[in-house]
Amino acid sequence: MPVYSISHVENVRVCVVMVGLPARGKSLIAQKIVRYLSWLSINSKCFNVGNYRRQLAGTEDINAAFFDSNNAEGLKYRREAIDNAVTDMMKWFSDENGVVGILDATNSTRERRDRILKLCRENLIEPMFLESFCDDDELILQNILDVKTTSPDYVDKDNEFATQDFLQRIKFYEEIYETMDQATDSDLTFIKLVNVNSQIILNRIESYLESRIVYYVMNLHIKPRCIWLSRHGESEYNLTGQIGGDSNLSDRGMRYAKKLPDLVLKSLGEENKHTNLTVWTSTLKRTQQTASFLPYKKKLQWKALDELDAGECDGMTYEEIENKFPEDFKARDDDKYEYRYKGGESYRDIVIRLEPIIMELERQENILIITHQAVLRCLYAYFMNVPQEESPWMSIPLHTLIKLEPRAYSTLVSRIKADIPAVSTYKEKGTSQLGEASGPNISKSRDLIKDSDVV
Amino acid sequence: MPVYSISHVENVRVCVVMVGLPARGKSLIAQKIVRYLSWLSINSKCFNVGNYRRQLAGTEDINAAFFDSNNAEGLKYRREAIDNAVTDMMKWFSDENGVVGILDATNSTRERRDRILKLCRENLIEPMFLESFCDDDELILQNILDVKTTSPDYVDKDNEFATQDFLQRIKFYEEIYETMDQATDSDLTFIKLVNVNSQIILNRIESYLESRIVYYVMNLHIKPRCIWLSRHGESEYNLTGQIGGDSNLSDRGMRYAKKLPDLVLKSLGEENKHTNLTVWTSTLKRTQQTASFLPYKKKLQWKALDELDAGECDGMTYEEIENKFPEDFKARDDDKYEYRYKGGESYRDIVIRLEPIIMELERQENILIITHQAVLRCLYAYFMNVPQEESPWMSIPLHTLIKLEPRAYSTLVSRIKADIPAVSTYKEKGTSQLGEASGPNISKSRDLIKDSDVV
Repeated sequence: MPVYSISHVENVRVCVVMVGLPARGKSLIAQKIVRYLSWLSINSKCFNVGNYRRQLAGTEDINAAFFDSNNAEGLKYRREAIDNAVTDMMKWFSDENGVVGILDATNSTRERRDRILKLCRENLIEPMFLESFCDDDELILQNILDVKTTSPDYVDKDNEFATQDFLQRIKFYEEIYETMDQATDSDLTFIKLVNVNSQIILNRIESYLESRIVYYVMNLHIKPRCIWLSRHGESEYNLTGQIGGDSNLSDRGMRYAKKLPDLVLKSLGEENKHTNLTVWTSTLKRTQQTASFLPYKKKLQWKALDELDAGECDGMTYEEIENKFPEDFKARDDDKYEYRYKGGESYRDIVIRLEPIIMELERQENILIITHQAVLRCLYAYFMNVPQEESPWMSIPLHTLIKLEPRAYSTLVSRIKADIPAVSTYKEKGTSQLGEASGPNISKSRDLIKDSDVV
Repeated sequence: MPVYSISHVENVRVCVVMVGLPARGKSLIAQKIVRYLSWLSINSKCFNVGNYRRQLAGTEDINAAFFDSNNAEGLKYRREAIDNAVTDMMKWFSDENGVVGILDATNSTRERRDRILKLCRENLIEPMFLESFCDDDELILQNILDVKTTSPDYVDKDNEFATQDFLQRIKFYEEIYETMDQATDSDLTFIKLVNVNSQIILNRIESYLESRIVYYVMNLHIKPRCIWLSRHGESEYNLTGQIGGDSNLSDRGMRYAKKLPDLVLKSLGEENKHTNLTVWTSTLKRTQQTASFLPYKKKLQWKALDELDAGECDGMTYEEIENKFPEDFKARDDDKYEYRYKGGESYRDIVIRLEPIIMELERQENILIITHQAVLRCLYAYFMNVPQEESPWMSIPLHTLIKLEPRAYSTLVSRIKADIPAVSTYKEKGTSQLGEASGPNISKSRDLIKDSDVV
């Protein structure tokens, strides 16, 4: 029988229709929503109309003139692009049990939005418009810089040309743009974000899913920051191969704790060495001991960061579990994400209890989290978009500091190794022996990873 | 060392300044926020200016004319009332470590709001305005009916007089009322609710606490509904006095499960017997077995409704715990809310994991929850505003269905006993023996309770 979490209460499908001029951060918001919902096991997908248009018309001959509403050929391509995107999205809802589809396009006019609205209603999908409105020139310029350097439309094009061309493109859209309006659009479900959350207008937000999306979007910010993740130092239980428990650090683990302040400084670089971090740990001794030499004043303990509860298997080695509960041992290997220890937790359970932590992380700036293998896997999976079937098998070695730098469309990862030996706590599928990982590793994920020198 | 939950991240104090004409549901919203935040251990208090005014001017001579802005004496009393309320609130912030103070008054004019704003800023308190705006006549009339029957201003007064007088009072306020405005008030932190959440405007919501209050308020609705709470039927572990585990129902527990559909029907009454409920259980067998004869289609399992995790003491009797861990046994008796079992949970931990359940309950309509003693205590404490030091000691007997009917300013409780014997699982402070409760009992709480006949 399925276990319901906060994400499964209703039987609602939502189409999030992005609205906004170019360079208003629409794609960024859309992608973050998809990543967040997917992490919560809500089947979500983004349909980017720009990509459809590029498939149809290429990028060679694309310049601002293409987006002039008097350009008949451009208009033809752009209509075809959105039609194809919408058709694919509807197919995805029906054939692949889609729950939240995001239509990422400018959707600038009421006429266009009405057509999507009608189509959604015909297909029993709740339309929710999400407008990013911005009249702060500095924010727009920042966004243009981001888009220029990341948009496939401007690959290999001259920098100055790209800026001017993009400004002209925005102008063409401005000519026809109709913002969402509390009076005219009062019958619609919509969120209007004004200048990155300085003002938010919510209209007819009704379903639970919609309210979750609203709350998530409300908590996003765009200030640059980093997040550091580390497992606790090697513990006494690690030495004996036991799982769970609340043991102290081993001597080597304590050496890692003492070195951690240096690793953090190194990751900050000379110019940022005075950056003030907040340190989050679990309630277990091994994470607090690991944090004990860090010079930062603000240290918070979170029960939600405690290690996966192994229930009846707490304190056992994998070998003991395999001998005592062979069927459970196999069942866990077969579906590690869903398997729940007797009287304990599954990876899915961890994700549910981590959800408020993720929300808080989105709100905060520089945070260093010292936690445990399974919890760190789940946090990492959120930031790096690692699928559920992979995340419980990722190898996250001891005595390694991971630094995440969220950027507009990707997250940079660096790993700083402490050069302090530690046992491996990695268990490969099909064995109860611990050893080096040959399976998926965090270094295999889809974003840039740079390995720092060993410090 | 304190364990941080989602509620303790920042060091921010917030003054929620209610804004709105009479009969806009301000007091209801204010009281719900206080109840919610207090349940999350956030020190919150509501300062109702009407109560201060009644203390100064009594209720005898109060009629609409008192609220005419040309009535100098009325004005004097009303100014004094708000000054006293604000003074008390500031004193409470500084002397009693207040975190969220709510100033419940109409605060109709910008001039009045500016004065409060200034005072908050001088005291390093974040002012957040919360306007309830309503121009839906039907909603207003409904609210007037509520106020008329509950306001201390109209006790013992003629019904028709009360309605007319109240309408006149609203008119006087309308003459001077200035609604919050996205342009004029763009520098302020505010939430504007339009016609009970059909539209919400959020402006400069920045701190975490503010965003939690927003999310909570967003999820409130005013449709009438009921919530039913029941413990699982007597379990095999209950018979042996063991705590935790995942045992089956006893024979008597199974009889309760079979009778439960009748108890629910009886509580619905003849006219509502076709009401459709949603049933929530924990993931443990005893709650699912208890739900198994209920005819309702929608049954959801929530891990968050599982019983308090007793960690190393799981499966033991209180006597065994007292013998094996005498210090822990005593520590738990001394502070049952904060005490965390080794490797397990405290009542505080349960509240944190129940928070999303409460949020979801606020959104939903008719829900029947079958859960466990400690979890039910925490849920009940939320609805009935039971303080932390009492809630872990409440007696909530087996084989009893509890029905909660949230009303504007109180919650009606009825208990329907099944007349199927069961052991007592109540442990009095200072003993390891189970027996009838002599301590605080749910029947002692501050709202109306009616005991139904035994069915």
